[in-house]
Amino acid sequence: MPPALHPTHLIALDWGTSSLRAYRLGAHGQTLELRALPCGVMQLPQTGGDGESGFEAAFEQACGDWLRAAPGTPVIAAGMVGSRQGWREVPYLEVPIAVDRIGGSLSTLRNRHGQLIHLVPGLIENSMLPNVMRGEETQVVGVLNALAGSGKSDASGQDILVGLPGTHSKWVQIRRSGAQSQLAHFDTFMTGEVFAALSGHTILGRGMQADGGDAEAGQRAFERGALVAQTAAGQAGVLSTIFSTRTLGLTGVLDGPGQREYLSGLLIGHEIAALQAMLRSQGRQPSQVMLVGEAGLCARYTQVLHAYGFGAVEVVAEATERGLWQLALTAGLLKHA
Amino acid sequence: MPPALHPTHLIALDWGTSSLRAYRLGAHGQTLELRALPCGVMQLPQTGGDGESGFEAAFEQACGDWLRAAPGTPVIAAGMVGSRQGWREVPYLEVPIAVDRIGGSLSTLRNRHGQLIHLVPGLIENSMLPNVMRGEETQVVGVLNALAGSGKSDASGQDILVGLPGTHSKWVQIRRSGAQSQLAHFDTFMTGEVFAALSGHTILGRGMQADGGDAEAGQRAFERGALVAQTAAGQAGVLSTIFSTRTLGLTGVLDGPGQREYLSGLLIGHEIAALQAMLRSQGRQPSQVMLVGEAGLCARYTQVLHAYGFGAVEVVAEATERGLWQLALTAGLLKHA
Repeated sequence: MPPALHPTHLIALDWGTSSLRAYRLGAHGQTLELRALPCGVMQLPQTGGDGESGFEAAFEQACGDWLRAAPGTPVIAAGMVGSRQGWREVPYLEVPIAVDRIGGSLSTLRNRHGQLIHLVPGLIENSMLPNVMRGEETQVVGVLNALAGSGKSDASGQDILVGLPGTHSKWVQIRRSGAQSQLAHFDTFMTGEVFAALSGHTILGRGMQADGGDAEAGQRAFERGALVAQTAAGQAGVLSTIFSTRTLGLTGVLDGPGQREYLSGLLIGHEIAALQAMLRSQGRQPSQVMLVGEAGLCARYTQVLHAYGFGAVEVVAEATERGLWQLALTAGLLKHA
Repeated sequence: MPPALHPTHLIALDWGTSSLRAYRLGAHGQTLELRALPCGVMQLPQTGGDGESGFEAAFEQACGDWLRAAPGTPVIAAGMVGSRQGWREVPYLEVPIAVDRIGGSLSTLRNRHGQLIHLVPGLIENSMLPNVMRGEETQVVGVLNALAGSGKSDASGQDILVGLPGTHSKWVQIRRSGAQSQLAHFDTFMTGEVFAALSGHTILGRGMQADGGDAEAGQRAFERGALVAQTAAGQAGVLSTIFSTRTLGLTGVLDGPGQREYLSGLLIGHEIAALQAMLRSQGRQPSQVMLVGEAGLCARYTQVLHAYGFGAVEVVAEATERGLWQLALTAGLLKHA
């Protein structure tokens, strides 16, 4: 193999429940190569060996050749790989926490070839209803890094809300004073997974169609759903309002594709309405909302956030690779700095 | 067949989505015989014939011999049999409605043997989020009939709340003035179906066990869940609080059977909290709550209702057969009266 034009400075793994993304990063943290494998911790390659061997095999597929081409390259990994079901369980760090502390708290394991792998700890908030995350803390670090790089970081002393919509949405409150950012609190909403369960496994799915609808009508149905939570009828809560997906179908107001869009808007609307109520009761009004996630989903959330009066909403790209790079930097894994 | 000791006065069918219950009722509405068949409108016997023939076959199984033994007996049926997927679609009556009007609005069909079958209409409330019921209106009639028979009907002029917990819970507000009862408003909560979908088809089910737990610990887990909706953390709404089922498992607070009980309590608690908030904002405080449903489920709801400050809660038995009898009486189907 000829010497690489752009030498590898960090191998960064985003290793979740269902997928594994491997980044080969260059001298400035730029992505030189990206591999997406269906090898999450719950669907590792079948090896027939011991419990470790599925992780070893997935790791080899993800970056074995990169390491052979550039021996000694540091490796960092975030996500469910550090969970109880992961390669090695890494204890959670407790929230509230200074964001800088995360990079100083990496755990390590060695694979069968003696390669050191640095694992990012997840976070736990031990309140009455505990909350946990693994992987999103890295994206939050990436968001703050992007914000610092954008020159917008002058607004220190103001709260930032980082939203990570997905199967389980996380909403993370960041408080800044001077150069310090504190991860103060976070909430989880199971909106994406609830949408899938309701659409696939309840009567609400019976009238739905996934495709074939008029885009404009679909958009109207989504908006109609999104606004329900802020009406008097929305007071009944999501266990009750979801039934209107069916009755608006029965009464001919929504067609099959419309029912699907309506339920999507309805659930996201309830999520944002609850988030807003909590922020208000805490006396917190974020100056900025930063979103990380799949583009289409971020567009849906942006629309609903605006409808509920959230002002500045920005979608941040490449938060994961930025976060992994920043954590490796803080941990002293990179030669330059 | 020898003449029956207790002659049949009414054949009453409670024909829902998944099951069909047939009652042979005597001179005073007492149940002489009951058959429960797995022949709901969504799982009719396979006949290979036309669309009607599944209904014909189920009807024959349910009460063909009763009719041959007592020709001319009136037949009444309530539930999804009158829906768009039913034997014949019966238009909904609109809420608010005087309860007496329901029995005066039955539709009829004739089966292939010329037997007249009277179908009870369902109810619709055409609000911003429309609500529908089919079958529960009959149980409400039965509850009011039971209440009149109990001598407690003196408390006219007071509101009654009828709760029908199940796959879809219905909460029905009855306003009484003199001998008149008005069905004023109702709400639907998909609590039972959501519980099944979350337990069976999301990550929350992964840590659960259905059986094997300590009964007392299970009861404590149920209570713990039921109270969440009235705490500050409960403000986050059900899309968020359900995640604590998992995190209280991860942190060792709840075992597998406990997680199941906790989620059950949590969802019912959110339902009752929302119901209470709506009643308060409407300025309505029911003097009495009457529950109809499976005994174990009614016990769960009674416990949560008490925890949320609802005073008098009573479980009403045999509401369906009482309601069908009362509706037949109002409709003039019974010779005596």
